[in-house]
Amino acid sequence: MSHNTFGHLFRVTTWGESHGPALGCVIDGCPPGLPLTPEMIQVWLEKRRPGLGKFVTQRQEPDAVRILSGVFEDERTGGPVTTGTPISLLIENTDQRSKDYSEIAQAFRPGHADYAYFAKYGVRDYRGGGRSSARETAARVAAGAVARRILEGVTIRAAVVQIGPHAIDRSRFDWAQTLENPFWAPDAAIVSVWEEHLETVRKGGSSTGAIVEVEATGVPAGWGAPLYAKLDAELAAALMSINAAKGVEIGSGFAAAAFSGEENADEMALGLKGVEFTTNHAGGVLGGISTGAPVVARVAFKPTSSILTPRTSLNEAGEQIELRTKGRHDPCVGIRGAPVVEAMVACVLADAYLRHRAQTGGGAFAPGQRDRIA
Amino acid sequence: MSHNTFGHLFRVTTWGESHGPALGCVIDGCPPGLPLTPEMIQVWLEKRRPGLGKFVTQRQEPDAVRILSGVFEDERTGGPVTTGTPISLLIENTDQRSKDYSEIAQAFRPGHADYAYFAKYGVRDYRGGGRSSARETAARVAAGAVARRILEGVTIRAAVVQIGPHAIDRSRFDWAQTLENPFWAPDAAIVSVWEEHLETVRKGGSSTGAIVEVEATGVPAGWGAPLYAKLDAELAAALMSINAAKGVEIGSGFAAAAFSGEENADEMALGLKGVEFTTNHAGGVLGGISTGAPVVARVAFKPTSSILTPRTSLNEAGEQIELRTKGRHDPCVGIRGAPVVEAMVACVLADAYLRHRAQTGGGAFAPGQRDRIA
Amino acid sequence: MSHNTFGHLFRVTTWGESHGPALGCVIDGCPPGLPLTPEMIQVWLEKRRPGLGKFVTQRQEPDAVRILSGVFEDERTGGPVTTGTPISLLIENTDQRSKDYSEIAQAFRPGHADYAYFAKYGVRDYRGGGRSSARETAARVAAGAVARRILEGVTIRAAVVQIGPHAIDRSRFDWAQTLENPFWAPDAAIVSVWEEHLETVRKGGSSTGAIVEVEATGVPAGWGAPLYAKLDAELAAALMSINAAKGVEIGSGFAAAAFSGEENADEMALGLKGVEFTTNHAGGVLGGISTGAPVVARVAFKPTSSILTPRTSLNEAGEQIELRTKGRHDPCVGIRGAPVVEAMVACVLADAYLRHRAQTGGGAFAPGQRDRIA
Amino acid sequence: MSHNTFGHLFRVTTWGESHGPALGCVIDGCPPGLPLTPEMIQVWLEKRRPGLGKFVTQRQEPDAVRILSGVFEDERTGGPVTTGTPISLLIENTDQRSKDYSEIAQAFRPGHADYAYFAKYGVRDYRGGGRSSARETAARVAAGAVARRILEGVTIRAAVVQIGPHAIDRSRFDWAQTLENPFWAPDAAIVSVWEEHLETVRKGGSSTGAIVEVEATGVPAGWGAPLYAKLDAELAAALMSINAAKGVEIGSGFAAAAFSGEENADEMALGLKGVEFTTNHAGGVLGGISTGAPVVARVAFKPTSSILTPRTSLNEAGEQIELRTKGRHDPCVGIRGAPVVEAMVACVLADAYLRHRAQTGGGAFAPGQRDRIA
Repeated sequence: MSHNTFGHLFRVTTWGESHGPALGCVIDGCPPGLPLTPEMIQVWLEKRRPGLGKFVTQRQEPDAVRILSGVFEDERTGGPVTTGTPISLLIENTDQRSKDYSEIAQAFRPGHADYAYFAKYGVRDYRGGGRSSARETAARVAAGAVARRILEGVTIRAAVVQIGPHAIDRSRFDWAQTLENPFWAPDAAIVSVWEEHLETVRKGGSSTGAIVEVEATGVPAGWGAPLYAKLDAELAAALMSINAAKGVEIGSGFAAAAFSGEENADEMALGLKGVEFTTNHAGGVLGGISTGAPVVARVAFKPTSSILTPRTSLNEAGEQIELRTKGRHDPCVGIRGAPVVEAMVACVLADAYLRHRAQTGGGAFAPGQRDRIA
Repeated sequence: MSHNTFGHLFRVTTWGESHGPALGCVIDGCPPGLPLTPEMIQVWLEKRRPGLGKFVTQRQEPDAVRILSGVFEDERTGGPVTTGTPISLLIENTDQRSKDYSEIAQAFRPGHADYAYFAKYGVRDYRGGGRSSARETAARVAAGAVARRILEGVTIRAAVVQIGPHAIDRSRFDWAQTLENPFWAPDAAIVSVWEEHLETVRKGGSSTGAIVEVEATGVPAGWGAPLYAKLDAELAAALMSINAAKGVEIGSGFAAAAFSGEENADEMALGLKGVEFTTNHAGGVLGGISTGAPVVARVAFKPTSSILTPRTSLNEAGEQIELRTKGRHDPCVGIRGAPVVEAMVACVLADAYLRHRAQTGGGAFAPGQRDRIA
Repeated sequence: MSHNTFGHLFRVTTWGESHGPALGCVIDGCPPGLPLTPEMIQVWLEKRRPGLGKFVTQRQEPDAVRILSGVFEDERTGGPVTTGTPISLLIENTDQRSKDYSEIAQAFRPGHADYAYFAKYGVRDYRGGGRSSARETAARVAAGAVARRILEGVTIRAAVVQIGPHAIDRSRFDWAQTLENPFWAPDAAIVSVWEEHLETVRKGGSSTGAIVEVEATGVPAGWGAPLYAKLDAELAAALMSINAAKGVEIGSGFAAAAFSGEENADEMALGLKGVEFTTNHAGGVLGGISTGAPVVARVAFKPTSSILTPRTSLNEAGEQIELRTKGRHDPCVGIRGAPVVEAMVACVLADAYLRHRAQTGGGAFAPGQRDRIA
Repeated sequence: MSHNTFGHLFRVTTWGESHGPALGCVIDGCPPGLPLTPEMIQVWLEKRRPGLGKFVTQRQEPDAVRILSGVFEDERTGGPVTTGTPISLLIENTDQRSKDYSEIAQAFRPGHADYAYFAKYGVRDYRGGGRSSARETAARVAAGAVARRILEGVTIRAAVVQIGPHAIDRSRFDWAQTLENPFWAPDAAIVSVWEEHLETVRKGGSSTGAIVEVEATGVPAGWGAPLYAKLDAELAAALMSINAAKGVEIGSGFAAAAFSGEENADEMALGLKGVEFTTNHAGGVLGGISTGAPVVARVAFKPTSSILTPRTSLNEAGEQIELRTKGRHDPCVGIRGAPVVEAMVACVLADAYLRHRAQTGGGAFAPGQRDRIA
């Protein structure tokens, strides 16, 4: 991945700062002829939009997306479709309150990108974190919405499975629940626990981490490529590139280290829909290639570094300071991370699909059949 | 990363199958004028070489590397140095026993890349896993040895911190110990536990997972780049691309999800050598850019899928089979993974260094100073 | 180069159609700390702006550029500088008259990209050529203006050396003249010839080709890299990617085919400023690497395909048609091509400079000196 | 294109010096299931092999290619096919006479890459030109042979159309003739003229330039992509990257500058096989996308810089010298350039085909039809 571009054939270049006039992305390599309207993108942006609850940043942003290029009416249907040329998406920033940030213009928030940007570049847009703001993830979500247009038959959904020290009870895991609470929690019983925890965190001016789990079903066998374009390696990069991400695992992930070979090996059988796996410790990826089982990943998010509790730090002049960060911050960035995780998985899968189609023509071989099937 | 190439400016392309005539890599973009002999590479290959103990594969391979291009005598020193042109490295395969694998030519080992390669390509070199064999990692280690020539002042070392369910006691962590036992264990007291565990695994024809930790010290602030070339995203991709890797975390990683903002934020101070962090939950990376603190990552390896216990599976004809894998396999691929993890980190850091030098000229800004310093 | 991105480290992604709401580009990888204002870009856009004379399209576009990201005030100077993050530039389209194009919505203009886009994508924005319009080159010129900020000490200038069958007299070549006439002609005596020719072409509803020559002085030795990132190969790709370009040559170019080895070999001597070449048949590039001599290239532009004379063609329904193109077209696209050629050379050189700095640290070895000099 | 890699999906990385132990390439991204034997590659290497006539270098190299990876027996046919994994090709150098070059170890041949490599890298393998030797083109030809396996239905052939000042008579152009003389001349009557010219050049210790024309027929409409992956831009880069190339043109190329719009626009009609063009000034490419007409390009080669006539130059110490180059050199590198030009076109087309298949699924829309056809 290049500095601000990810993907190989479905390529997304994002730009913009938290408090600049706008942010956006350019999506290149999208197949032509796919219906695409601003509404199809907006619906996903709503999922990550700030200001939607008391446990996310109170910044009010409509996040209205404009499509500036790459779409034209299809003479056959009359509706707007992708043309195969670059799709430029733009989201204006409307609720920037730059004065909030004047105190930290030259200070380095502990645990924040402030110091690293200063060391590397010597100059940075400090307002709201500038380029390092989670606001950039709006562009990812917009790109993910376009990626989903390519992924017919694939369903991607994320859930928050841990907030702070409180993990869900996996025996109660129910995807339907994620749409019933503001935390994308798949476990109804955890909601009140998290509410209480977040209320404590919020009142204390603190923050808390989280773990997001994502699942993509309907991914056929054959996507991804050994060895350095492995589907899991691409997912790892895409997910680790999200703000505040500190860990990524596929399938059983770190737990697999404690497994025996017998426990780990997902047995195979032929079912009505083809190859089936009795378990899915692999998380749908073997040898870097999808197997047809659900692709499963988890991402660990650290607590946001902007907290009210004073912390010892430095400023650009090299002076020791005590720093507390005011402003409108997410106490748990992981919650709004869920739609971003979905979007990144969508982009990676769309890219893998195009690469697979390039090298092989698409489709896959199945046991008992002589030819590649669609 | 492309299919079989990784890196952007320090680019490594690997090739070769487990039981083909040879394997190797081409390293492109290496700076000129760096002393490089086969011995400088061989010393690292020795660390991952098979046949060195009873807990790794008994395949006997000298793994002697040849430098076929990219090095010439320096007229100033008379010694061989890199010329800036591609460095082609070749390692011959000498102990291929292809007959060992005839039984599984058309069978899919559960948990192995067999089925995924079949589905994608329809044809595969099944001998010893072909391209999906861990033997490919010899090329990575060779490339890592070249990367280290670029990384003056950086020390990269890996330790195995868990085998199966047995984790080290971190209070006894001692890097010096990693050179005193065949497991790269940094905790002397764990060695006998692991020996016993591995003996049980080996005798049972089973296998076990592991976790490898890696640390790079001496990395200056400023390497890596937001947002999709983040140093941690690049590390995640590189480490997840290693055979059998299922998880990657940076710094406190998944544990950070349970932290509060106060716990997680590494406080900063000015010390004798510049900026110092009181803790290192960030693992040396903030906003995708190195901070000068040690870069720390962990990789989870699943147990190898080649086990003697019969498992239910399929073959290419679509028939249900009971499969047990004979042959010479590592009961714990994570052990030999340690030098590979080091090598991948070396390659990622060398690449990040060159990219940083490209965009900024190198060096970094420091608090209290007006200009970029080397 | 990717579909709509060019460059490796100085990367430019352009987007936009002729008659969409806007067009623009995202520039990634730019070094930080370079002063950059909209005015610094606007001055170059003025050079290629339509509506400036009767021999270029009469479309009236202010081509006012906005910088949406990547620039922030430098705390040391107070002025806006690049921050090292992506620079998003946007130019609104204000004078689109889409009705002009309704007749050709489903017709293929001979010599135009119409049919090729239809065959590839099945859908296209036909208004004004959509993505294939020369209007896209405004984004290239804007990017070139940013590239020039990096190229301290390098002067890039282009001249039109042939329009239709009328070539300049090279004995009268004078760069100063290019600023004295609307054709970028370096030969004062050719101006009236070209005026007469273009008047005839314009009145006849026809068009004419041209050749543009570009020279970059101040390029130090060492930029470019063998073998597939050769400076001349990169220039060839960048220049051939300009609308209507059909040929690129470096130095003596096609004429070199008729030379003897003695005639072609530029002899070398040490002058006051270092290595000097008595001639420059090489055009400043040997083995794909700059030599310190001026980099010289020429680009051939075909006549624009939009002409009033009826031509036999097809439409999307497969019907034979007679087609004449109304609208506001350049009779000689090569004239406005001159600033575009300059811009592409600037981008290629900036990229080559960053790549050179990455691999070697910058600078070059000089005869008689032991060490690399800046 | 990266330093020593070209192509995006069909990627070729070459390595090796003229007088090192071997040279070769790694081909990545090749589709699986294509029959491939060493003989299929060898036949093309024979076309460019040195030592085959008195007008090419007298170096005797068998140029026997070995396939080290990426090919395995197909269980369905029993024959060797590509597996989709990287194909490593190796050619040993057997006739290196390094002593020939000792005199020029520290001298810069005028018109040669010597000085540029020195300036950039400070160290270089001077033997036989090292990495800048035309010997590297053997790897290109080998890669081109693999590319041809992908290009079913496409015929690529090159002819030499000018040597020194002597151009062919195009009215006598006959592809069959190119196989009847050692110059790939398509005009029987030019052969004796060229023989005489080359004999004079050879006896005088001089050299001469040449122009090679290449044509690819059977390329369907739709390959290539606007704007920076234009098929002609990719061809320009690939062809300009060949040693000694100084110019590239597509279709009518530089001649198009003198055309009127009427002359240049290739009219279209529907024929029995679909869209037909009455002329082909475009050289089969419009808007960067293939049209179905033959793809036509020409490459200008300068005379080789290694000549016996003394020329004024410098050495590494900065001393003025008189230099004459002994050794075994091609008096006209353009002749052996013809198979290399073919190979580069094959690689570019194979890459364009895979990219087209990725974005669109392959095939193209045709006038009068509603759906994409294969």
